[in-house]
Amino acid sequence: MVERFAATPEPPYYAVIFTSSQTEYLKGYDAMAEAMVELAHAQPGCLGSESARTPDGIGITVSYFTDEESILAWKANANHLGAQRLGRERWYAHYEVRVARVERAYSGPQGR
Amino acid sequence: MVERFAATPEPPYYAVIFTSSQTEYLKGYDAMAEAMVELAHAQPGCLGSESARTPDGIGITVSYFTDEESILAWKANANHLGAQRLGRERWYAHYEVRVARVERAYSGPQGR
Repeated sequence: MVERFAATPEPPYYAVIFTSSQTEYLKGYDAMAEAMVELAHAQPGCLGSESARTPDGIGITVSYFTDEESILAWKANANHLGAQRLGRERWYAHYEVRVARVERAYSGPQGR
Repeated sequence: MVERFAATPEPPYYAVIFTSSQTEYLKGYDAMAEAMVELAHAQPGCLGSESARTPDGIGITVSYFTDEESILAWKANANHLGAQRLGRERWYAHYEVRVARVERAYSGPQGR
């Protein structure tokens, strides 16, 4: 069970924002996505991730890392490279990846 | 009609990552959310936004801005302040806000 909110430390740290729309050929997608979340969370420097997908719409996954080196290592992970290839060839109609440095953060509502 | 993908320029620019879970009291939420997206996109410095919500689950909205000053101006917008108050009091069980500087970006799959 993956937590819905990532327990990130005080900034600075890094966020990889992955926004995607899917094709209609989604065989194998859910199992692979679940496996990749587990594998990502086990990588050195990964601080967790948050994910949402509107049915028949857009999906956003934000993964948090301590530093850029950890992001590049995860991108080059052999199992992840295989998943990325399937994503490009089958599952994603379009995607945008943005790598960003988190500079400040807060949460709410206070008192809940 | 809001585009699903924000047409952002070459980095650097800024991202506000808003991750939230909802309460069960959602009266007025959809209309307000739609109004706030339209209003945000009309703000100086706003480059667009992307949003996804898993039914009964987590929602992620990422809004893109040219600079920190534009983010602070939008946060202080009078109509937005009213929406933020209702969000804190009624609609959001929990939220995390992270302000990040986008340093690099790419899209895919190539050729589609």
